[in-house]
Amino acid sequence: MSKAITARDQDYSQWYNDLVLKGELADYSAVRGCMVIRPYGFALWEKMRDQLDRMFKETGHVNAYFPLFIPKSFLSKEAAHVEGFAKECAVVTHYRLKNDPNGGGVVVDPEAKLDEELIVRPTSETIIWNTYKTWIQSYRDLPLLINQWANVVRWEMRTRLFLRTAEFLWQEGHTAHATAEEAVAETVQMLNVYADFVEQYMAVPVIKGVKSESERFAGAVDTYCIEALMQDGKALQAGTSHFLGQNFAKAFDVKFSDKENKLDYVWATSWGVSTRLIGALIMAHSDDEGLILPPKIAPLQVVVIPIYKGEEQKAALDAKAKDIVADLKKAGITVKYDDSDNARPGWKFAEYEMKGVPVRIALGMRDLENKVVEVARRDTREKKSMSMDGLTQNIAALLNDIQENMFNKAKAYRDAHISEANSWDEFVSLLEGKGGFISAHWDGTPETEAAIKEKTRATIRCIPLNNPQQEGKCVLTGKPSKQRVLFAIAY
Amino acid sequence: MSKAITARDQDYSQWYNDLVLKGELADYSAVRGCMVIRPYGFALWEKMRDQLDRMFKETGHVNAYFPLFIPKSFLSKEAAHVEGFAKECAVVTHYRLKNDPNGGGVVVDPEAKLDEELIVRPTSETIIWNTYKTWIQSYRDLPLLINQWANVVRWEMRTRLFLRTAEFLWQEGHTAHATAEEAVAETVQMLNVYADFVEQYMAVPVIKGVKSESERFAGAVDTYCIEALMQDGKALQAGTSHFLGQNFAKAFDVKFSDKENKLDYVWATSWGVSTRLIGALIMAHSDDEGLILPPKIAPLQVVVIPIYKGEEQKAALDAKAKDIVADLKKAGITVKYDDSDNARPGWKFAEYEMKGVPVRIALGMRDLENKVVEVARRDTREKKSMSMDGLTQNIAALLNDIQENMFNKAKAYRDAHISEANSWDEFVSLLEGKGGFISAHWDGTPETEAAIKEKTRATIRCIPLNNPQQEGKCVLTGKPSKQRVLFAIAY
Repeated sequence: MSKAITARDQDYSQWYNDLVLKGELADYSAVRGCMVIRPYGFALWEKMRDQLDRMFKETGHVNAYFPLFIPKSFLSKEAAHVEGFAKECAVVTHYRLKNDPNGGGVVVDPEAKLDEELIVRPTSETIIWNTYKTWIQSYRDLPLLINQWANVVRWEMRTRLFLRTAEFLWQEGHTAHATAEEAVAETVQMLNVYADFVEQYMAVPVIKGVKSESERFAGAVDTYCIEALMQDGKALQAGTSHFLGQNFAKAFDVKFSDKENKLDYVWATSWGVSTRLIGALIMAHSDDEGLILPPKIAPLQVVVIPIYKGEEQKAALDAKAKDIVADLKKAGITVKYDDSDNARPGWKFAEYEMKGVPVRIALGMRDLENKVVEVARRDTREKKSMSMDGLTQNIAALLNDIQENMFNKAKAYRDAHISEANSWDEFVSLLEGKGGFISAHWDGTPETEAAIKEKTRATIRCIPLNNPQQEGKCVLTGKPSKQRVLFAIAY
Repeated sequence: MSKAITARDQDYSQWYNDLVLKGELADYSAVRGCMVIRPYGFALWEKMRDQLDRMFKETGHVNAYFPLFIPKSFLSKEAAHVEGFAKECAVVTHYRLKNDPNGGGVVVDPEAKLDEELIVRPTSETIIWNTYKTWIQSYRDLPLLINQWANVVRWEMRTRLFLRTAEFLWQEGHTAHATAEEAVAETVQMLNVYADFVEQYMAVPVIKGVKSESERFAGAVDTYCIEALMQDGKALQAGTSHFLGQNFAKAFDVKFSDKENKLDYVWATSWGVSTRLIGALIMAHSDDEGLILPPKIAPLQVVVIPIYKGEEQKAALDAKAKDIVADLKKAGITVKYDDSDNARPGWKFAEYEMKGVPVRIALGMRDLENKVVEVARRDTREKKSMSMDGLTQNIAALLNDIQENMFNKAKAYRDAHISEANSWDEFVSLLEGKGGFISAHWDGTPETEAAIKEKTRATIRCIPLNNPQQEGKCVLTGKPSKQRVLFAIAY
């Protein structure tokens, strides 16, 4: 194989980078912390984005677009928000360059200094609620159910392709409601949309829960989240949905008159997922041969490769292969016939395995005689001979089976990695050994949470929804606890 | 009507702003020169974007995503490019804010100054060609046919919603080729894709041409363009496609080895259209009652409005209206049944006229008895009664007719506004009177072009493709000219 991948058990982190770079999903760029999303990675993002967009629209949302820049003063208007977001961010201070009088290219024109600095949006609550002020007067203007697909920038010090980059692509929903109940219902609805998407399309099982106070979004009353488990036993937050209460409405003075003509502040939610999901996808499924992509979001679902010697054989295979491809396309399957002559079949096999294409169909002269093809599935790497009769139907069924199998495998792994810890020693030994989620009692204080993080790097990933209320003693302090929560070391 | 629009002949510029604001396409924002694209405007952009994206993919292009930021030094690498773009732009100089020690919110942390400033991309040739350097080694890597949908920022001093904003949304194609011929063919292909899109979907006729040297893209060997005419007689550049020669390959040292293993610089193109197209769409078609949107890209193609008194009548109409809507939807028509009780039919009629919905169907009790509906087309404002039998088919035909009629009307106006000027007096009097495109001889020098612009504000919009070669005398200098070119005052 031309592009060797580091094995997971040798260097997990390098394995991940190898997959991203050699699978041609993304590349480093000349700008610190910013990545280039390559065509194959972007095609994957498009599949994810388009499906999410359909789900948002089915639940009554519309898209809009708000400015990239946020006036610095806006960040300070919501007290908790400024603490969370007005730290590491890209600050625009000038609006013009000029030729260097000393001949050294271009320099910033000191005369073109902005009166007020602009922040490249790290998230858009402030600029959006400043706009909603002019759009919302009456209960008739509510609910306002808007989503935005956009790029955002957070000046992270330690970056990882997809998982943590200075610039990333995401969607952010920002809704406005007349009542708290309605806003909470929206928050939960979007959490469910995210969970359905990640489980049914990405084949990654998630735990739905609520964040503890210290892990809450800056400015939220409650942050709901979905948490996934990676193959190295670390957790990854895959999406969040925030109930913002009236915090932003108060900060930006957004009031509406209700049916009785009484003025009240508007209730808000916001919710987002990002290109980070691609990192989760990679780490939940892939193996030492490369990516493994679930059929429902794979940019290419099936590749057909002819195996031949000489032009005569190729012509014979071509005719049949093109029929197969046409039939698969007709059935709505994304398929490519790779008859390029610049690589041998073995090299192509490895290349498409690396890229995680769910199904490979190989076709040689003997297959043609026997009216069969060789079908290899990427998830289990099993190969079998399949009759050309009913092939399209069988491939469609196989794609469904792969999708299901990937989810089941990831779920079995995840379920096997939720462990109860009933003492501090057990907590530490589980974390250091098996990893995964640790279900443990916690006394409910931010101090204890911080102490546990300090000692072990583990954080409270969530308090699961519908968590059983069960008395116990905090795993660290021994103080009384009302329920277990899920800890993990997280990306 | 609740939202009066300024008449075109009273104040054209205010008419345009009224349409954008009251039609709820866009809104001003708190950030100078940046707009908010509202849901209705964004739905329109989505229809345009999705169709263009299909056309790009059909011609073999794939999407990718490159960083928002460009290191300042990159702009200086291509000599002409830096002159054109490294002027009015947003400059990021710092990466952190901190709490104001004097308690005044947040301030820029002077210790977080970037070593090299970052420019928010005004266009992406430099960052992309810096990346292509690592992707292109051999002729096997070519052609590279990549497009990007992105936001860009140019710090314009005088901004207009959609037409000229500091931040705007666009797509930029950046392709790399082994030969000049292939790159030129790509440039022309994409010009044709743009022209087809603008004419067939936006119903706006365009003239394809080449820019004069002074109007060329900064860094291009040749800039091809499509030029449209607005109702006030001004031209609007609707899209450009650039043959970049080897300029960027040389600036970023991108070479490839050909089949004979000989090294050469890569040939390049770039091409883009932006949300500015929405400005063109508005000004080409709309009238004093509001927007007029062509059916092929209208977010909503048909609205159905019931006219009733009391719940009993409404129930009777509902049943029929829902059948009509279901049938239209089945035929792939985007339709809304507006039975909201918070506005009277007359108000709704005006509202959907304002929003440019191509077809309105009204349904009252007498219509129900007579098995007819009242159908109003937005483009001509004609109303007629249509039988409920075969309604879906007739509405589909009507939508096609509207699409065609809008193009023909715009084309007749455009064709009537291409005038020949054979003297300077004629040139000036045409410009000041009739407006539109003026076909005139020009001596081919940038000096004369500049002088004409200085005297009249008119610029050379393009030298039409396949322009007849015809001797004559320059309209300003009287010097010999080989062909007429098209002048106009432009947006």
